Amino acid sequence: MGNKLLMKGNEAMGEAAIRIGCRAYFCYPITPQSEIAEYLSKRMPEVGGVFLQGEAENAVAYMLFGAAAAGVRVFTSSSSPGISLMAEAMSYLAAAELPVVIVNVMRNGPGLGGILPAQSDYFQATKGAGHGDYHFIVLAPSSVQESVDLMAEAFHVAERHRNPVLIAVDGMIGQMMEPVELPPEDAETSRFIPGHEDWATTGCGQRKPHLVKTLFLNPAEGMLHNEKLAAKYQRICRSEVRYEEVDTDQDMDVLLVSFGTMARICRTAMEELTRRGLKVGLFRPISLYPFPLHPLRALAPRARQVVSVEMSMGQMIEDVERAVLGQSPVRFFGKAGGIVPSPEEVIEGIWALSKE
Amino acid sequence: MGNKLLMKGNEAMGEAAIRIGCRAYFCYPITPQSEIAEYLSKRMPEVGGVFLQGEAENAVAYMLFGAAAAGVRVFTSSSSPGISLMAEAMSYLAAAELPVVIVNVMRNGPGLGGILPAQSDYFQATKGAGHGDYHFIVLAPSSVQESVDLMAEAFHVAERHRNPVLIAVDGMIGQMMEPVELPPEDAETSRFIPGHEDWATTGCGQRKPHLVKTLFLNPAEGMLHNEKLAAKYQRICRSEVRYEEVDTDQDMDVLLVSFGTMARICRTAMEELTRRGLKVGLFRPISLYPFPLHPLRALAPRARQVVSVEMSMGQMIEDVERAVLGQSPVRFFGKAGGIVPSPEEVIEGIWALSKE
Amino acid sequence: MGNKLLMKGNEAMGEAAIRIGCRAYFCYPITPQSEIAEYLSKRMPEVGGVFLQGEAENAVAYMLFGAAAAGVRVFTSSSSPGISLMAEAMSYLAAAELPVVIVNVMRNGPGLGGILPAQSDYFQATKGAGHGDYHFIVLAPSSVQESVDLMAEAFHVAERHRNPVLIAVDGMIGQMMEPVELPPEDAETSRFIPGHEDWATTGCGQRKPHLVKTLFLNPAEGMLHNEKLAAKYQRICRSEVRYEEVDTDQDMDVLLVSFGTMARICRTAMEELTRRGLKVGLFRPISLYPFPLHPLRALAPRARQVVSVEMSMGQMIEDVERAVLGQSPVRFFGKAGGIVPSPEEVIEGIWALSKE
Amino acid sequence: MGNKLLMKGNEAMGEAAIRIGCRAYFCYPITPQSEIAEYLSKRMPEVGGVFLQGEAENAVAYMLFGAAAAGVRVFTSSSSPGISLMAEAMSYLAAAELPVVIVNVMRNGPGLGGILPAQSDYFQATKGAGHGDYHFIVLAPSSVQESVDLMAEAFHVAERHRNPVLIAVDGMIGQMMEPVELPPEDAETSRFIPGHEDWATTGCGQRKPHLVKTLFLNPAEGMLHNEKLAAKYQRICRSEVRYEEVDTDQDMDVLLVSFGTMARICRTAMEELTRRGLKVGLFRPISLYPFPLHPLRALAPRARQVVSVEMSMGQMIEDVERAVLGQSPVRFFGKAGGIVPSPEEVIEGIWALSKE
Repeated sequence: MGNKLLMKGNEAMGEAAIRIGCRAYFCYPITPQSEIAEYLSKRMPEVGGVFLQGEAENAVAYMLFGAAAAGVRVFTSSSSPGISLMAEAMSYLAAAELPVVIVNVMRNGPGLGGILPAQSDYFQATKGAGHGDYHFIVLAPSSVQESVDLMAEAFHVAERHRNPVLIAVDGMIGQMMEPVELPPEDAETSRFIPGHEDWATTGCGQRKPHLVKTLFLNPAEGMLHNEKLAAKYQRICRSEVRYEEVDTDQDMDVLLVSFGTMARICRTAMEELTRRGLKVGLFRPISLYPFPLHPLRALAPRARQVVSVEMSMGQMIEDVERAVLGQSPVRFFGKAGGIVPSPEEVIEGIWALSKE
Repeated sequence: MGNKLLMKGNEAMGEAAIRIGCRAYFCYPITPQSEIAEYLSKRMPEVGGVFLQGEAENAVAYMLFGAAAAGVRVFTSSSSPGISLMAEAMSYLAAAELPVVIVNVMRNGPGLGGILPAQSDYFQATKGAGHGDYHFIVLAPSSVQESVDLMAEAFHVAERHRNPVLIAVDGMIGQMMEPVELPPEDAETSRFIPGHEDWATTGCGQRKPHLVKTLFLNPAEGMLHNEKLAAKYQRICRSEVRYEEVDTDQDMDVLLVSFGTMARICRTAMEELTRRGLKVGLFRPISLYPFPLHPLRALAPRARQVVSVEMSMGQMIEDVERAVLGQSPVRFFGKAGGIVPSPEEVIEGIWALSKE
Repeated sequence: MGNKLLMKGNEAMGEAAIRIGCRAYFCYPITPQSEIAEYLSKRMPEVGGVFLQGEAENAVAYMLFGAAAAGVRVFTSSSSPGISLMAEAMSYLAAAELPVVIVNVMRNGPGLGGILPAQSDYFQATKGAGHGDYHFIVLAPSSVQESVDLMAEAFHVAERHRNPVLIAVDGMIGQMMEPVELPPEDAETSRFIPGHEDWATTGCGQRKPHLVKTLFLNPAEGMLHNEKLAAKYQRICRSEVRYEEVDTDQDMDVLLVSFGTMARICRTAMEELTRRGLKVGLFRPISLYPFPLHPLRALAPRARQVVSVEMSMGQMIEDVERAVLGQSPVRFFGKAGGIVPSPEEVIEGIWALSKE
Repeated sequence: MGNKLLMKGNEAMGEAAIRIGCRAYFCYPITPQSEIAEYLSKRMPEVGGVFLQGEAENAVAYMLFGAAAAGVRVFTSSSSPGISLMAEAMSYLAAAELPVVIVNVMRNGPGLGGILPAQSDYFQATKGAGHGDYHFIVLAPSSVQESVDLMAEAFHVAERHRNPVLIAVDGMIGQMMEPVELPPEDAETSRFIPGHEDWATTGCGQRKPHLVKTLFLNPAEGMLHNEKLAAKYQRICRSEVRYEEVDTDQDMDVLLVSFGTMARICRTAMEELTRRGLKVGLFRPISLYPFPLHPLRALAPRARQVVSVEMSMGQMIEDVERAVLGQSPVRFFGKAGGIVPSPEEVIEGIWALSKE
């Protein structure tokens, strides 16, 4: 194993993108993700890359569209309200099958809200900020190391399926410092999307012109395009499910379902709950879309109850219900608005639910 | 009963808003909802109201914020990509508890898509285009008359809960002409939101200043605000569920779940399916949020299978699954991209599913 | 003398800026100057410079403000309507004494006009598009070589006086190919403005903070600032006057006053007019601001008449009148709207005037 | 004659526009002209007119274009930096021959400057903020009553020549209260431009379509359009010259040339200068474009010296020089940056110049 560096999550994600070969980053500043922009404003020029601050989030998202349509690896980062401003473009990016990466360092909302960590953009990320039938692949790391690993992975997954990927992280991971092992600087990485020669608009010269578009005025064409996208989403649901299980090889009093920072807190809480004699397991979705429906469904019969633990007011719980399908009761524990629950609060909350 | 007028759905919705007392309409043009704007550009001045075309959808949505924060009844209309451009503002409107009405005359997507009817903004409407924990109340009429009735109702529901309402309609209803009975012109209607004196920023004079805001930097305040909103959404889930059942007082081979234009087509298809000997019922959600989970859950055991019939690639089916909770198999029939399924296609599709 | 390259005027100006050390170019596309942008979009990255397309001309001009306020050499180019969109910023740039360079490849107007060569932004360039008492130094080359030389000179002049410089050229020079000698690539050139350490906002560290501003709410300060600027403009009028005289060492029947492309056409016309027995001289302002008032005033008594020859409807003639001050009659010959007068037209026009 | 009302200049100009029949006012707020907007935001609805705040000055100017192209009387007001932001549109308005009225309540510049009175947009107003060969007619009142009279006159002059008119006033007149006689409310006034039926785009029905445009890609057409405009400007120079002379029927030691507020101060100063034995006359241009060249040229031989007295650093002096043409020395007295010279300063300044 290589050397570890002590880095902030935000900076580590920026560096990981560079290591993977990405040389284009466009952004508009917003707290609590500005360290990514700040880091890359210095780092991109050092590696011959492009750092560009657009005039607004909507513009940035369409700059991503332009760069990716020309075959270039590109990403952006923002935070909740900034992501909302990209809603229209997100639908366009998915419709045009452009493998871009967008990082959402989630803050608390709704509205202007505040700048503290949150997970309440779960719906927006997984069900779709924008209009029409489309999906982003959504990945949710729960440590600085995992955010680095998933950043690198995000580009590969996006490119494998020609589909945008959203990394849903929260300000706690973004601003936490942890020792981290970065991907090696690979001489073979490229600033271009592998295989872009087959579809990107790079100047056609002698070949047939390529067209990257989302307009289908002919309804038959529009239907075919939607069916093509739907088939892709089914492939993604089969091949890109990611999750982690902890202490689930037992009959459980409580099965916690939680992701990101909240899952970390759950692991701490589990120790005390176990000490009190409760049999507790943890199911941690890493891919929020595709949600690991079947693995969770398989576990559900062995849990007396399932609790969705969120830093939101109850969003992932809907997918948990769809997974559990009535096999055991599904309950909710969560908070939103800027207050990250402490392990003690989680312990007492779960303890109380387990006694119902 | 009064006289009926033959009107297009789009125009009828515009007139209904005026009858209910709304005197402010802001918009940005987009097909297929432009008849609403065109109609109101002439009609608003006649009744001393304000018609204003903003410079972009995002601006329009914040003009709604401004007007409603000043206590004024106001609404806008747009179509799928235009609604996406309001995503950030929609989160702000809900966060600030402003009782505005937004009409989405859905067109097919994703991306630029086309201008034909669709229902594929179901996720966006019900789960949230914007960031943070918030909900719009979402109403889905299936005829011109119902779009008129729900337009009037939308303002009352919005004002009762101080929560935005989205009317999800499609271009077919918007552009169809049907005989329609409009609400009477009530001398008592007001251009102001009832009770706005208690919270709107109308110039404080001698009283304590009012504040309409969405920023809560103090996390304890932010949490309280989210809990207040969550409690409201629970009240809404108890009191604002709307749906229609057809032929559900029997044991059913198939229970169709469908809304809007698609539900109309289902009713035509049911006649032929019944003639073929199939026992078919229809459950039509009128409120998409709150989704009528419990009424549908109660019906599920009496249906051998449940089919979600959509003009999208499978969105409402997730709520149907959460309602049915494994009591009977849930299947999908639908299309997207601009092609509205014909009754014949629905008949054959359901017939085939029923034989599985 | 070094090797000459055959280059378009637009490209040659771009390359000259790079040779002089400029590493930042911001722009928004408009015909007929787009070759500058196209050339630099490739060239800037090769030399580690920044090429950036802004969202609109107004934004570009304020990006220049930002870069120059941070001590960076920077320039932009546009064409007539695009320059108008920078009018507010031009006043700010001069007020803040920022040594930026703006190239106007003039097209015919007014309004949208067309894309053919013109000189009808003379007033805008010399009297001031923006508000308040301010001046740009304005330089007008009449060949590709001179446009290269003045481009290099522009940065030095701007930096010497900490004052913006506008290069007024027309599409004919911009798109004409001529052999051109470029400035050598000087190892000593810098991407920073010489002496910027004394005033630029580069991060203050231990030193006193610098402030680059144009707001003077205190009227005494505002007056002092205007007097400081006025004193600078007087210094510029003494030291930066540039012009060329041809055949003026004789008593003249006609003294032509003309700049840029029009002056080239005049030189061709002079040959035939001389052959016809007319004594013709040419006075060519190279600096339009400061206008060479005194050199022209000194020549006026020796000319039976003075003719301002312009590719506009009569703009420079006002400065010619102020120079000549009634010592001899001042007449006008010119055209606008896209038609560049041919030498034959000029010959006949001047011939006719000389017979009056 | 009728009753006089005590009104602020800004409000009085707004009311005068209404009395003359104007029912459309678009604006973007800026000090020191906001009283016009405030007044009309209440007054326009009372008379069935349109008050509209645009999203930026550039947008407002193009809203004027749209309204006037549809045959509607319309005006806006702004202050120096706001006028600069209209520079492009001003060129388009003149090119399209649209008879709109723009009021510039001048503040001190350049750049952000301050909010105190100034006359330093003289160049911008008279020589042209925008690109290409075009002219606004520019009127400069020197009292509240005159600003009312010229406001009414502005619409008539604009419509007579189908040419935009700019009223150049300063914050002193705009905010000063004086008794004022308003034009009567004429039953015959119209919200439409007289004769617009012949050219405006009002929906063509049976007649040949009208076209309001500024694009002339064919150079011959472009030239004809410029010649048509030039011929109009010559007509304007013959017929729209306005000025006032005071004590000019004598041989003068000093002839002051001054406009607006500064001319008022000059009149006060003249009394003391006369008491000291100096023979002083005043020439006050009321139309800044066309500048009263010939009337001033005729007076010049009778003055031992001519002094251009300005609240700027020397702008109108260029037109004074062109008028005087060396017949007597032209000197300058002025200040800029927010300090309005007191009568005492003017007295001492002129006294000192007269002794040179």
